[in-house]
Parts: sequence; C-alpha cells; structure tokens
Amino acid sequence: MARCIATWLMAEQGVRKAHELLINGHASAEALLKIIQEVENDERFVSVARGGLPNRDGYVQLDGAFMDGNDLRFGAVMAMEDIASPIAVAYKLKDRDANNILAGIGAKEYALKNGFEEVNNLTDKAKKRYLEKTENDPLKAYDGHDTVGAIVIDDSGHMTVGTSTSGLFYKDNGRIGDSPLIGSGFYADSEVGGAAATGMGEDIAKGCLSYRIVELLREGFNINKATKTAVDELVGRLERSGIKARDISVIALDRFGNYAAYSNITDFTFCIDDDEKGVRVLRLGFDENGDQVYSEADEAFKRSWLENES
Amino acid sequence: MARCIATWLMAEQGVRKAHELLINGHASAEALLKIIQEVENDERFVSVARGGLPNRDGYVQLDGAFMDGNDLRFGAVMAMEDIASPIAVAYKLKDRDANNILAGIGAKEYALKNGFEEVNNLTDKAKKRYLEKTENDPLKAYDGHDTVGAIVIDDSGHMTVGTSTSGLFYKDNGRIGDSPLIGSGFYADSEVGGAAATGMGEDIAKGCLSYRIVELLREGFNINKATKTAVDELVGRLERSGIKARDISVIALDRFGNYAAYSNITDFTFCIDDDEKGVRVLRLGFDENGDQVYSEADEAFKRSWLENES
Repeated sequence: MARCIATWLMAEQGVRKAHELLINGHASAEALLKIIQEVENDERFVSVARGGLPNRDGYVQLDGAFMDGNDLRFGAVMAMEDIASPIAVAYKLKDRDANNILAGIGAKEYALKNGFEEVNNLTDKAKKRYLEKTENDPLKAYDGHDTVGAIVIDDSGHMTVGTSTSGLFYKDNGRIGDSPLIGSGFYADSEVGGAAATGMGEDIAKGCLSYRIVELLREGFNINKATKTAVDELVGRLERSGIKARDISVIALDRFGNYAAYSNITDFTFCIDDDEKGVRVLRLGFDENGDQVYSEADEAFKRSWLENES
Repeated sequence: MARCIATWLMAEQGVRKAHELLINGHASAEALLKIIQEVENDERFVSVARGGLPNRDGYVQLDGAFMDGNDLRFGAVMAMEDIASPIAVAYKLKDRDANNILAGIGAKEYALKNGFEEVNNLTDKAKKRYLEKTENDPLKAYDGHDTVGAIVIDDSGHMTVGTSTSGLFYKDNGRIGDSPLIGSGFYADSEVGGAAATGMGEDIAKGCLSYRIVELLREGFNINKATKTAVDELVGRLERSGIKARDISVIALDRFGNYAAYSNITDFTFCIDDDEKGVRVLRLGFDENGDQVYSEADEAFKRSWLENES
C-alpha cells in the first residue's frame, strides 16, 4: 500500500502533493523528492534550505540525504552552500559508484558541474535573526533544528527516505548533524522499513537511531514498539552515563505501510496520508499514564507553530 | 582485561606502544591515540594523514573519528586539510556539547584555533603518484582505502574506538567515506563492545556495519559470529539487489577482551596484543571449506605489504 510520512507540520503541503502522486501511480522517489522540495522551496521555514538560519559565520550551510531502500544506494551532502536543493543533489549522488557523500566546497562544486544553479540561500529575515543573535545571545543554546525528513513506500513496495536541513542555528562552520549521516538521520530497506530522525543530531547519532529502528522492525517489533524502544533505549543509555538526552523525534514506516512516530518532547508533529482520512497533521503528546498519544493538530496550533518556526 | 586491536599491518608499532601503556595502567583513550598517531606520524603509509594520497584536485583531505564507549561521546573530522592528526582533533571535539562533527574548512579552522599547527600533508612521494595517476589512469577504480582503525579496552573496562584515513586515492573534493561516520566506520559501547571498519566506505556505510556488530554482540552473539554475520548479511543484502560488495574488513573487541576480525577479501591484516604471545600481526585467509582462518604474518609477507602500501 502506497503511503508517505514526513516530519513536522511544515511538510503538510508536500505530503498532500506526494499523496496525489502516489495514488496516481508515481514512484517512491518522485513522491519523496516532492515532499522535501516543497519545504526546501518555501523560504518561510527557518531550518531548511533557502530561508534557513545561518551558521556562526553568517553562512547558510545545508545538509541533506537520499536513500533508496531497494538497493541501499544513498547520496548525501554536508555543509553545502549556495545550492537550493540538498535533496536533489543527494538524489543525484546516489547513483554514483563512489563519492556518494560530499562535504563543503566539494559538494557545491559537484552541484554546479551537474546543472544546479548558484543561489543565495540567506534571506533578509534570516540575516536579521542572525544579527540579533550575534548581538544579544551568541552563547545561548542552539535552536532551530527541525529537519524535514520523509519516508515513502509506493505500490510496488519501493521505499525511499530523505532529509534536508540547514542544521543548528549559529552552528560552527562545517558542523554536521545527524541528517546527512546514514543510519543516524535516515535509513531505509524495502525488505523491512524506513526511519528518519529530527532533533539534536549530536545525540541522535550516538544511537544510530534510524538504523536501530529498522533493525528492530527486522527483528519483528511492530512499528510503534520499534520507534518507542529505539528512542527509549538511547535516552536510557545516555542517562546511565549521566547525560540528559536533548530533543529526539523519529518517524517510521514499515514495508506494509504501517507508520509511527515517537519523541521525547511534547508537540512533535508529523504529516501522514491516510486512506480514510486524507492527509493528516498529527501532534504527539503524553496521556496521564505517560503513554504517547496522537491528536490532530487544529488550526490554532498550526497557526501558532508557523508563527514560531517561520 | 586490557587489550587493543587495530587494522592493518601498519598499526604494529602503535599496538606495541599501546600494549606497554595498557600493562602499565594507562587509560583506554591514551592507548587508542597512541596507536592511531603512530600511523598518522609515519609518512610511509599512503592512506593515513601525512603521506596520504591526495584527492582528484591534488589536496590531501583527512577523515578521522574518536568515540568514548563509556558515555557514547564522539568527535569526527571530515575532509580536513593541513592538520597532522585527525584523531587528535576528533578527540578534542568529543568533549563539546554540540558541533562534534566538523567538515572541510570548518574542521581546519577549529583545529588551528585549538592549538594544532598548519602543516603540509602532501609528501613528494604522494605528489609523484598523483601526477602519474593523472597522466596515466585517471579513471581507474579507486585504490588506497586502508583506514587505520583501533579499539581499546583498559583494565577498568573503558572502551574507546578511533579511525584515521586520507580516504580513497583520487577521490572527489569533499568525498567522505565511512571512517568518520558513526555507526559505519566505528562504534563503541563499553557495556557491550566496539568495532571498526576499513575498505570501500560507500559499501560499508550501507549496512552501518560497526554499529551492527555491536548490536549483534548485545544480542549475545560471540565475537566471531558477530563480525562474520554482520559482513555476510551486508554482502548478501547487496547481492540480492544485484550489487557485488567491494572490499569490506572489520575488527571488533567485546567488553571481556575477546577479539575477532572478518573480511570479504583475503590478506586483510590486523594487530592484536595477546597476553601469552605478545603483539601479533594476524593475516586473514580462507581454508578449503571457505571458513576464515588467521595465520601469523611472517617477515616476507610484512616486507611485501610494506612495499606495496608505502
């Protein structure tokens, strides 16, 4: 059964378009690129592609990755500047025999040689927030780490996963988070399922979280148990070392089209296309027993989120 | 029980020195750094640090990583130029709260700001081989992908893992392999064990191989079965997609000090300190049943290897 899932409310329009593609028989990768590129092209969002908040030096450096669950081929770009769509470059990189992961100037050079245009990803709004941060709270904890991640399965059972982000606001030059790291920010195997993560990349990577979820699915865990177990294990492992895990949120999809999300924060949102109910934006919370529950994100919540995040 | 293991014959001197440190009560990280830095500082070796073969543009770009198995903290540098010791920079990065992975110019900038000197990593010998390749066989398959990876456990049970490499000879500018990718090139958890990989990074990463080995150990596999299973699974999975896996070699150490290596090539070598037999260089091969066997690398083999690799 064809289905797609993506992180955060910002993916809603992309998931709507991907849903249309999938019900009209289009392939997994096409729907995946549609979801991610809708977010990349929307400069309201301050954590992905153009409009993304810059690093400490004032440059917008982008990370992104694409993985094909059929043959495990993947591509990734890291700290790439001046190119509009990290996911498109990653998608192109995945077909090479080697040099599938490119960082920094090399990633930009590859993109330019392969028909991508040089663009300015720094918007006036992002520049203004950067200048305010530099003046007021340069040492405050990082914020703005909302990666768009998506997983798609099409009618043939072909799974793909992708991510795109501008990373932590005010990060160091060249800082890489989990999003372009295979196994940490993303993983998909059409024989099993796929997963993607968003949050504090430096913590997510400590547990190879996306790969771990897929492995738990392979072992026979259902999708809800796999996502919860992987996050709880990592949070627990860090706790045993006296480390409090920071924001960690995941989405996952198995090869039957079953989906789940899990998070150690409240108000993580994700978008899912549901055959019966259409495209839904679901919000994660906890009930009185501490169990995680989904609820529909209403219009007031959406407005408030969009004001904060864009 | 304190023990250390490292990839390739080139680590022999480092393992000897690390063995001395360990039996004199020094800590895991110190022994680990000793192993890797002995190789980094030896410019005979064409796949690690100074003396490493350059990328397609003629620049030596280095990758390296360090992970602490007690608290899962890690640091990594990617495509870093002009700094002598990737492992030392990665080690320093692991103590930060964020920005633990740095790529490209950002990695070099961080190193320079933190007391590392700017050096020239391109030796005359490496430059000569680069110029010959450019003239003669610029499109031939990549070679020179021998990462030094090491895993150490000290008497307190503290495990560390590290990697250092100049990556594929003639790689693209900014190309990243598995060595600085957590879970793929390296992983350690003192509660379980550690693993490191060397070979064709683009294939190793498709299976998050080091993390997979540690997970199999956690599930109760013994060290020989864990390494063999992880490599065979990945090779088999790629085969099911019509892809022939390229060179993949791994080393692993569990929390009891048991060690193993496994490879899909013949003549992979590794160094191990053995209480009874001292530091040994072991060479992997296959017996008549296709089962993997270790044999001591003799002096003739060592001479021949060193001639090829340096």
